[in-house]
Amino acid sequence: SYMAEVVVVRNKQVIFKDYINGFPKTSDMEVTYDAIIRLELPKNDGGLILTKNLYLSCDPYMRSRMSRSTEGSYVDSFTPGSPIIGYGVSRVLDSSLPNFKKGDLIWGLINWEEYSLIKDTSSLIKIQHIDVPLSYYTGILGMPGVTAYVGFYEICSPKKGDTVFVSAASGAVGQLVGQFAKLYRCYVVGSAGSKEKVDLLKNKFGFDEAFNYKEEQDLNAALKRYFPNGIDIYFENVGGKMLDEVLRNMRLHGRIAACGMITQYNLDQPEGIQNLFLIVTKSIRMEGFLVFDYYHLYPKFLEMILPLIHEGKITYVEDIVEGLENAPAALIGLYSGKNVGKQVVAIAHE
Amino acid sequence: SYMAEVVVVRNKQVIFKDYINGFPKTSDMEVTYDAIIRLELPKNDGGLILTKNLYLSCDPYMRSRMSRSTEGSYVDSFTPGSPIIGYGVSRVLDSSLPNFKKGDLIWGLINWEEYSLIKDTSSLIKIQHIDVPLSYYTGILGMPGVTAYVGFYEICSPKKGDTVFVSAASGAVGQLVGQFAKLYRCYVVGSAGSKEKVDLLKNKFGFDEAFNYKEEQDLNAALKRYFPNGIDIYFENVGGKMLDEVLRNMRLHGRIAACGMITQYNLDQPEGIQNLFLIVTKSIRMEGFLVFDYYHLYPKFLEMILPLIHEGKITYVEDIVEGLENAPAALIGLYSGKNVGKQVVAIAHE
Ligand SMILES: NC(=O)c1ccc[n+]([C@@H]2O[C@H](COP(=O)([O-])OP(=O)(O)OC[C@H]3O[C@@H](n4cnc5c(N)ncnc54)[C@H](OP(=O)(O)O)[C@@H]3O)[C@@H](O)[C@H]2O)c1
Ligand SMILES: NC(=O)c1ccc[n+]([C@@H]2O[C@H](COP(=O)([O-])OP(=O)(O)OC[C@H]3O[C@@H](n4cnc5c(N)ncnc54)[C@H](OP(=O)(O)O)[C@@H]3O)[C@@H](O)[C@H]2O)c1
Repeated sequence: SYMAEVVVVRNKQVIFKDYINGFPKTSDMEVTYDAIIRLELPKNDGGLILTKNLYLSCDPYMRSRMSRSTEGSYVDSFTPGSPIIGYGVSRVLDSSLPNFKKGDLIWGLINWEEYSLIKDTSSLIKIQHIDVPLSYYTGILGMPGVTAYVGFYEICSPKKGDTVFVSAASGAVGQLVGQFAKLYRCYVVGSAGSKEKVDLLKNKFGFDEAFNYKEEQDLNAALKRYFPNGIDIYFENVGGKMLDEVLRNMRLHGRIAACGMITQYNLDQPEGIQNLFLIVTKSIRMEGFLVFDYYHLYPKFLEMILPLIHEGKITYVEDIVEGLENAPAALIGLYSGKNVGKQVVAIAHE
Repeated sequence: SYMAEVVVVRNKQVIFKDYINGFPKTSDMEVTYDAIIRLELPKNDGGLILTKNLYLSCDPYMRSRMSRSTEGSYVDSFTPGSPIIGYGVSRVLDSSLPNFKKGDLIWGLINWEEYSLIKDTSSLIKIQHIDVPLSYYTGILGMPGVTAYVGFYEICSPKKGDTVFVSAASGAVGQLVGQFAKLYRCYVVGSAGSKEKVDLLKNKFGFDEAFNYKEEQDLNAALKRYFPNGIDIYFENVGGKMLDEVLRNMRLHGRIAACGMITQYNLDQPEGIQNLFLIVTKSIRMEGFLVFDYYHLYPKFLEMILPLIHEGKITYVEDIVEGLENAPAALIGLYSGKNVGKQVVAIAHE
């Protein structure tokens, strides 16, 4: 009888060490080379897929999973001693599940490791369009893309001519929100944390204006400079001081899509927002949302975004680091703005 | 020729002395007896009405008008040396305007004085239904009534069975919100500042539960006691600490109607709200509104509320003090919770 050659390999992993407080450090994770994996499905596995992982996504919300779950946690903690989990793009090497087959490409939640045996495939979506960079499925065609789409079109209630402000504007989500708003004929201003990012906003993503918030002594004055008549829509990615100053500059019946508040993720005690009474006096709607509730819109989203990409009407900037061993630094870099565009980790190029 | 006898009378007034900071005091207003008024329209007056003022409304927002207008002021300041202006009910003694005639009853913005000559009648609404106490047009059938109606039905997006929390629940607005929510088959809990008010909530207004927030060491624990599964709708009247604790107890997709934040009106520096990131993680919609934008719904509101009053399905508690000289104390009493129900000042009973 014919004996298939089964490859057994070391499986590089990024292990979450223990729950943390405050800013994450690379030493909160460990890159290990100890695990070994047989590149074959076990017999009678009850339904599994075996994947080779290609791209990992670094996303700000992952910080929450590094804290011990408490009242109000919206995601489960990572398990100390187990790999970090995040969005990624993988090739299916083998499958005993009917809806996946060898050779398929997928995106969804995967372990930070080279190869995975996956039992819970509920988050995995099969990739149908490969005439774009595969890494896009961590960004513009993945979770951040849907976030920008839902946040702008479903939450912001945009009207042509609206004035739109986007914080963390050059990031995975923000760069898309700004471009959507421009396509919608809004006036769009973004803030970001470096000259390089501000240049991208103005010259690559077509924002009408952009500024480096780190160089503004007075955020209120900066916002007044770009929005002399106020802000109709604020796409909120950062929270804290910026939110307080934006509230002062919102227009009557303004809308705030509360997408994230990255300035608060590493604080033990959140900063207080003082200008909230303006929500009453300006009839502002501030609305939070989680992209996870909107994945049913993914086909509709693809239908919209793919032609825009192909026609060059939407562009997307990624910041790709090579190698799983650089994933911890890439992840923590989000919280100091090291990433320029969508932060991706390439594990393997096929 | 026949000479009509024209009465000239002293016109008692409540004068706003000067812009204030901090808590208002009775001494910030002055009751004067110096002004005189001829109870007749001047010749060629260009369109005026002469009113005898019957009831005045004390409303929390009036505090804003006692501050010097600044960026973000949503109402104009009172004019130092001129009467306080507020909602009230008046009898038209004479009119040279086509849409008002002698004998009409009206409600709207009037000076705090016994008689008024009114040129700008844009805020005045003719009273058509007098089979209810006239004072109701300062409360349930006036501005606070429309506020409760709009806030609950238009902003809260209620569903049967929703859990509803109302702060300042026994007040002009709150007592109605709670009753609307009960009629809508919601579970309703209110907070108020005294045992007497809590008793009213439970025994007169039909709230399912009520508590005295001043006697709770731990607001979070109190809210958990009454909302073990969380709050779907928060009707926000107070802001500050209560809002922060409510955020911790909101359910996914909860709604906050931001009606007012009375705890903040007398502070020079607003308190910071710390738990705002929960708006993101719980997909909360927090929406402010101003009743002034919704007066077009007044006829529809009356159509709903009048039968409910006549059938005894809605009840309304007023706190009526007699005499213009007691108006300053009545107004400032709002900010320490002295009023039990809607605070009204009766100037004259016809
Ligand atoms: N609601 C949802 O379902 C959902 C889904 C995805 C993402 N989000 C949220 O959306 C926001 C953007 O996510 P993203 O993936 O697009 O990330 P990103 O913008 O690509 O990366 C994070 C960026 O945040 C900025 N930042 C980090 N720390 C900051 C601080 N202390 N103060 C100000 N800015 C800081 C940095 O940009 P600068 O250099 O410009 O400061 C950094 O590059 C995050 O708040 C995230 O949590 C929410
Ligand atoms: N958005 C709009 O268009 C609109 C229209 C009308 C009213 N409002 C707002 O709705 C809210 C209720 O107005 P209302 O006319 O019904 O007033 P109200 O409840 O009849 O009277 C004010 C009540 O607020 C409570 N209060 C006062 N100071 C407080 C403090 N420091 N902390 C906690 N509670 C305090 C007191 O009740 P306790 O004894 O229970 O503490 C007091 O009786 C106010 O915030 C008002 O500004 C908004």
